[in-house]
Amino acid sequence: MNAIITLTTDFGLTDAYVAAMKGVILGINPDAKIVDICHSITPQNIDEAAFVLGSAYQFFPERTIHLVVVDPGVGTGRQAVVLRTPRFDFVAPDNGVLSGVVEPFLKERLHPEQRQISPPPALKAVSLTNPGFWRSPVSPTFHGRDIFAPVAAWLSLGTSLEKFGEVTDSITVLPEQRPHQESEETLVGRIVHIDHFGNLITNFKREDLPAKPFIIEAGQSLIPQVSRTYGEGEGLLALIGSSGRLEIAMKGGSARDFLGAAVGGEVKIRLVKR
Amino acid sequence: MNAIITLTTDFGLTDAYVAAMKGVILGINPDAKIVDICHSITPQNIDEAAFVLGSAYQFFPERTIHLVVVDPGVGTGRQAVVLRTPRFDFVAPDNGVLSGVVEPFLKERLHPEQRQISPPPALKAVSLTNPGFWRSPVSPTFHGRDIFAPVAAWLSLGTSLEKFGEVTDSITVLPEQRPHQESEETLVGRIVHIDHFGNLITNFKREDLPAKPFIIEAGQSLIPQVSRTYGEGEGLLALIGSSGRLEIAMKGGSARDFLGAAVGGEVKIRLVKR
Amino acid sequence: MNAIITLTTDFGLTDAYVAAMKGVILGINPDAKIVDICHSITPQNIDEAAFVLGSAYQFFPERTIHLVVVDPGVGTGRQAVVLRTPRFDFVAPDNGVLSGVVEPFLKERLHPEQRQISPPPALKAVSLTNPGFWRSPVSPTFHGRDIFAPVAAWLSLGTSLEKFGEVTDSITVLPEQRPHQESEETLVGRIVHIDHFGNLITNFKREDLPAKPFIIEAGQSLIPQVSRTYGEGEGLLALIGSSGRLEIAMKGGSARDFLGAAVGGEVKIRLVKR
Repeated sequence: MNAIITLTTDFGLTDAYVAAMKGVILGINPDAKIVDICHSITPQNIDEAAFVLGSAYQFFPERTIHLVVVDPGVGTGRQAVVLRTPRFDFVAPDNGVLSGVVEPFLKERLHPEQRQISPPPALKAVSLTNPGFWRSPVSPTFHGRDIFAPVAAWLSLGTSLEKFGEVTDSITVLPEQRPHQESEETLVGRIVHIDHFGNLITNFKREDLPAKPFIIEAGQSLIPQVSRTYGEGEGLLALIGSSGRLEIAMKGGSARDFLGAAVGGEVKIRLVKR
Repeated sequence: MNAIITLTTDFGLTDAYVAAMKGVILGINPDAKIVDICHSITPQNIDEAAFVLGSAYQFFPERTIHLVVVDPGVGTGRQAVVLRTPRFDFVAPDNGVLSGVVEPFLKERLHPEQRQISPPPALKAVSLTNPGFWRSPVSPTFHGRDIFAPVAAWLSLGTSLEKFGEVTDSITVLPEQRPHQESEETLVGRIVHIDHFGNLITNFKREDLPAKPFIIEAGQSLIPQVSRTYGEGEGLLALIGSSGRLEIAMKGGSARDFLGAAVGGEVKIRLVKR
Repeated sequence: MNAIITLTTDFGLTDAYVAAMKGVILGINPDAKIVDICHSITPQNIDEAAFVLGSAYQFFPERTIHLVVVDPGVGTGRQAVVLRTPRFDFVAPDNGVLSGVVEPFLKERLHPEQRQISPPPALKAVSLTNPGFWRSPVSPTFHGRDIFAPVAAWLSLGTSLEKFGEVTDSITVLPEQRPHQESEETLVGRIVHIDHFGNLITNFKREDLPAKPFIIEAGQSLIPQVSRTYGEGEGLLALIGSSGRLEIAMKGGSARDFLGAAVGGEVKIRLVKR
């Protein structure tokens, strides 16, 4: 029963919150292998957590259990879930943090206003309502330790999904912000994440790039081509990063600092006549 | 022999000090499961280490070995100990960092000036004096690697306590700072920790809260009731946090930043006539 | 096959890059024990990575696999290697980050301009050229995940060195900056690392210290003797730290802050007549 349990939280590294969750997990399944994905999510930033989780979960072995606790609604009425996909299990508050996990299974794009959907047929979601798998008493401020950690640990021991609560036909998604066409020549995308190196990761995917010649506009800067590596050319460059998205980077420096960029900022692709 | 060894240090994450300790442990017990509690303790801050350890150690399985290295007196004459409680073992410098572990076993409150006590009968303390379990030579500046880590590793292999040195009848405690009565209507407590979210954790425990109506005073702000979760109301709020202590929090923000608060600052509880 | 694999990167802790590598490793060898050495190396700082790795690797059990990904040349023509020493294996880009590992095996000091050497006879280096052990497709920007992690994982399963590629007779080293004699009375060294406590670690080794009386000069400050521990005396002090090098420290504070010191700064040893 040496299942892998990954952790993604906004708890930071200066307190013992993460350690308390690990202690609880090991008390239930001493053989669990716990792997940190990230604990430095900006407090209560669900979008950032969804992005960071989305860039790591698929590299783990099948049946890894991914536990996510970024939970601004802790102690309120929000639902908590176990979500089973063909390859992984996820344990998280139902606040949209699993949107990137659900999206590949959707048949069509969601309406931008839609927040609640039925889980696609390949997935199964169970609402965590059975306190038999929780610590007791449950702190209304720390479900990570008292609900999510023990549920993940019992799951890693092979407990069947239905035992944790009722199958739910409504889960929360945050519709993906896709680039949009501003004019015939211009696509407008956004910075969805800025990494440790100051690289700006956008919502342009490889398949969004036009077949015709184009130029990339980031802040006041124009980038005339897509490079292959961070080591090419000089200054600002654009490339398809390891997550399959268009990134703006700065050779030997930080594109964030150079451009004064922030998450949410626009990046444009303009067709050019050559 | 897959015992759990937790680590709490002020070594930070930018050097290899923690890794060196882990390497030494795994060289002695390759099956040890090492779990980080926290390495971001403010350098040489024994109070903070005692608080962070105190908020995590009890969530681990019985017989977990908790190793603490916050050690301003490294290389001087201070004693180092293994402390055995009914549920856990602790390996640490004898500088008061285990006060929160010892306190629940004390029959009566200590005199505020008292620093040395005999271990309560339920506990056993051994002074680390047997160099047979140390690395050789011992660096006078890094007992974490050369004394504490190997002792914890040998302990995890089942080495009996007495082998590490002499049973000691004197250990160091830092008397808990308890709230005090300033007047008939006013209790004065202190901020003992500020967490990653900017929540102010005080030394008021649940049982310290008056039965009669009261108001909480933090900085210039008055908080008229105790909420149940971080999601209630607006602005500043007070609640009993996951450690069982009164916390001051800011909905969707940082109470530390809002109040300009610091560890050691006062928080008052005033009885009110309603 | 519960081999230990350590990780040293400049990936930071705010992204999922490290976790993606761990997921890949565990997908190949579910029993690997992964231990973080450091992920806070200054981006693309090969010297710092070499120092941090050098202060930890030798404390791990024999045959530990040390994986290092500080790789400014990712995706360019730089060689990647597995380096086998009598006690450990290393997997890294061939950019000099393993210099501290190679150096003890050199018969003579390198010419300061020399960057490429033949591996000393006790070592064996293999160039990573066999894509059969890589993820596919390989991202040109993330060899850590797609080449280094899977190679380390296969190595931990006992794959023989030759399978990963050709034995190479040229590896990269960064010649060690040794203290030099400025005059008959004065040795000039450098700060090679500043640790989390603000201690200044120099390139003076224990054996570099003169037998005759001397004084240490750091910034505008003079330190008249070498102490044994951080707890001695008052103010600025010098001692031989846990890495066997001369360190400048500040009792109860930070020598970096006190002196405004930076890596690369000079520290001098002057003979004195007493």
